[in-house]
Amino acid sequence: MLADGSTFEKVGVNRFAGGGALPSEMAARLGSERAQGLEVEFFATGVSVVCHPRSPMVPIVHMNVRYFQLTGPDGEVVDHWFGGGLDLTPTYPFPEDAVHFHRTLRRICMQHHPEYYDRFKAWCDRYFVNIHRDNENRGIGGIFFDNLRPGENGELDAEAAFALVRDVGLAMRVAYGPIVERRRKEPWGSREKELQLVRRGRYAEFNLVHDRGTKFGLQTNARIESVLMSMPPSANWGYNLTWPEGTFEHRLHQMLPPRNWADGVPDEFLTPVR
Amino acid sequence: MLADGSTFEKVGVNRFAGGGALPSEMAARLGSERAQGLEVEFFATGVSVVCHPRSPMVPIVHMNVRYFQLTGPDGEVVDHWFGGGLDLTPTYPFPEDAVHFHRTLRRICMQHHPEYYDRFKAWCDRYFVNIHRDNENRGIGGIFFDNLRPGENGELDAEAAFALVRDVGLAMRVAYGPIVERRRKEPWGSREKELQLVRRGRYAEFNLVHDRGTKFGLQTNARIESVLMSMPPSANWGYNLTWPEGTFEHRLHQMLPPRNWADGVPDEFLTPVR
Repeated sequence: MLADGSTFEKVGVNRFAGGGALPSEMAARLGSERAQGLEVEFFATGVSVVCHPRSPMVPIVHMNVRYFQLTGPDGEVVDHWFGGGLDLTPTYPFPEDAVHFHRTLRRICMQHHPEYYDRFKAWCDRYFVNIHRDNENRGIGGIFFDNLRPGENGELDAEAAFALVRDVGLAMRVAYGPIVERRRKEPWGSREKELQLVRRGRYAEFNLVHDRGTKFGLQTNARIESVLMSMPPSANWGYNLTWPEGTFEHRLHQMLPPRNWADGVPDEFLTPVR
Repeated sequence: MLADGSTFEKVGVNRFAGGGALPSEMAARLGSERAQGLEVEFFATGVSVVCHPRSPMVPIVHMNVRYFQLTGPDGEVVDHWFGGGLDLTPTYPFPEDAVHFHRTLRRICMQHHPEYYDRFKAWCDRYFVNIHRDNENRGIGGIFFDNLRPGENGELDAEAAFALVRDVGLAMRVAYGPIVERRRKEPWGSREKELQLVRRGRYAEFNLVHDRGTKFGLQTNARIESVLMSMPPSANWGYNLTWPEGTFEHRLHQMLPPRNWADGVPDEFLTPVR
């Protein structure tokens, strides 16, 4: 955990690796058909990173890679799969940053499988949604995937899937790093900070109400400070906030519905805002 | 909604009154045995108030009173019940305020039924708990009750139950008002504010993760700004925060496990903290 840095107010890095006998209610959730009716042991490992920048000009980034494995009574692997993702949650609307982020992810995914970017991008758009906020997306998306079973139904084999997941983890540096570099020195004031705190409130709502990993942690009595390391350092809740057209706050909200950012900046975002 | 007042940073008042055909999944949740197998209409009404003071020396208060009624095909009342409560969430530890709050509630409850204070106090202690935070109570409690069916099993009759619920609503003035009056002018600094923001974070967690009313609102697509009017104006999340014995932060956390505040200030709270 990094706290109170000059660029990042809070960065959480969570590594996990563990296993044991698979609790039956967990087996049902995992949806592993191959493990049904078997006494299995599970092994799970992964890394999560959440960066909450101090400046509202720098977006929040979230990365997660994970691997899950079920073994039978003789230690043989009964089922196994990968999951992962990388997504961006901006406060100040820079459409060109969303384009850079998605183009980088598309390029990296394309190195592994021709269909993965489109599939994982759409999955991310469906997953990071505050349903209770009239289906508002948490940010401008990225990629998200789960249950990638190596070699099944045309998926990559185990070694290639691991290479993909590794690249998703490393993608943070190239997809996010340049955005941090070019935005961290940009000036901002109380209006930008205020919007950041509101967006952090939405971030907190998604994590506590919808995020599967967090909900699972809350229900299974996991170490709470690890489960909630993704929470923003601070957040605000206003009442019935709206912003007039032509403001940067309004523009940010126009950027949230899913778009094909990798295709470039949409025309409607070429008009200036203030 | 009151925002940015000098004493209160945010006060939400939520009135509701409405009804219609009872959705089947709601019928099951309500647990009304009398309505089973019947086509019923429901009518629900209530008032909620949440006051978030600016000063960390003034506690948060939450009040809710509600009435629920199910009517059969001929308009006859098949089932009906009251619910309500009033509870306090302090930041700065003033044991004598907890005593005043609970004594006032005990006195008011005693005017209606000899057993209600003890029952409703224990119910409140069980309900406002962040289970995921190692069963930490949200505040120092108060009273909470639900499913008070008039005339059943020795409960008050309808008129007397309504008088009780009305008094619970009015109790806010006498149980909370004097605390606000004597604490609002007390000096405070950044340490007190910091603890307030952390406690507000716990308040937000309870509301989003555990509170039945909020969860119901989130799941039923209710007007979100009304459902979340109880959220704090701002909140912080630190990492693994602990405070040494002898500090006011540590004292506050010592006050959270349920106690019989109406009996007076426990001896252990007579030593000064700073």
